Amino acid sequence: MLVHEMTVNECRAALAGMRVGRLACARDNQPYVVPFHFAYDDKAHIYSRTTHLYAFSMLGQKIEWMRANPLVCVEVDEIKRQDDWTSVIIFGRYEELPDTPEFEAERAYAHEMFSRHAMWWQPAYAATEHRGESQDSQPIYFRIRIEKMTGRRADVIEEQERAEQPATPHH
Amino acid sequence: MLVHEMTVNECRAALAGMRVGRLACARDNQPYVVPFHFAYDDKAHIYSRTTHLYAFSMLGQKIEWMRANPLVCVEVDEIKRQDDWTSVIIFGRYEELPDTPEFEAERAYAHEMFSRHAMWWQPAYAATEHRGESQDSQPIYFRIRIEKMTGRRADVIEEQERAEQPATPHH
Repeated sequence: MLVHEMTVNECRAALAGMRVGRLACARDNQPYVVPFHFAYDDKAHIYSRTTHLYAFSMLGQKIEWMRANPLVCVEVDEIKRQDDWTSVIIFGRYEELPDTPEFEAERAYAHEMFSRHAMWWQPAYAATEHRGESQDSQPIYFRIRIEKMTGRRADVIEEQERAEQPATPHH
Repeated sequence: MLVHEMTVNECRAALAGMRVGRLACARDNQPYVVPFHFAYDDKAHIYSRTTHLYAFSMLGQKIEWMRANPLVCVEVDEIKRQDDWTSVIIFGRYEELPDTPEFEAERAYAHEMFSRHAMWWQPAYAATEHRGESQDSQPIYFRIRIEKMTGRRADVIEEQERAEQPATPHH
């Protein structure tokens, strides 16, 4: 198995094809990580220096913690086999998109992204946010501003090359 | 789709059948989340009040951060479809198992778990820890002491029941 560093463009392409990631936030240095659905526009960097993952969620522990501390980390992967996987890690900041005139354009853009990714007609909001949420409230739109993004990809290599690698890393 | 709270025993059974999770740690309130392989003994609670996830990793950012702040969160899921998934979330503490006589028994137990889960003969250590690691050092054994564990499971429900649910949560 060979592990490659991905370029930022490769990370963008990988993100555009993925729908589910894991979103980690923290409060008083206690991390908290949950699965979440997101939408990513891999063309956005052409128009803007800052790009984002877009998502929505019912109010709950995750939103409350990110409001208190906007520093987050997102991990997105596709693990086909132990020797065939892609993993992208993002350090970013939580940005809420409240239902006010000030954020109308951003919310419309987010809504278009969610529609394009079929995040509305499926009960994704129930699948992705299910801990301590308030079911009778409206979903909260938010985005994660990408501040740093790295990715790695593993490829299968030939048996001979594999044999040259340590089989038992413990020894 | 119906979402069920899982009992602790159901969480244990789910963990025992899973191999890959996401491990979140934090430093200065900046969370960091990576995929990791783990082993879990769902019989351990019979003998001990505290149970653990066992894992190993090369030295790197994750280990350094957990040494500085042992508070972690682990998310383990199986997402078959958007309406058919299981997700377990653990709040726990990082406990390193150094190669000293004091930890001999714990390391032997960990080693047995890794062998049972075929974590040795596959280059799992390369697959799961690949950011900022030191490749020439020995893998570090550690475990996550489970302090709180919750789980949810989604089941598909009949079409008629589904129709009674809000199709567009935004409105």
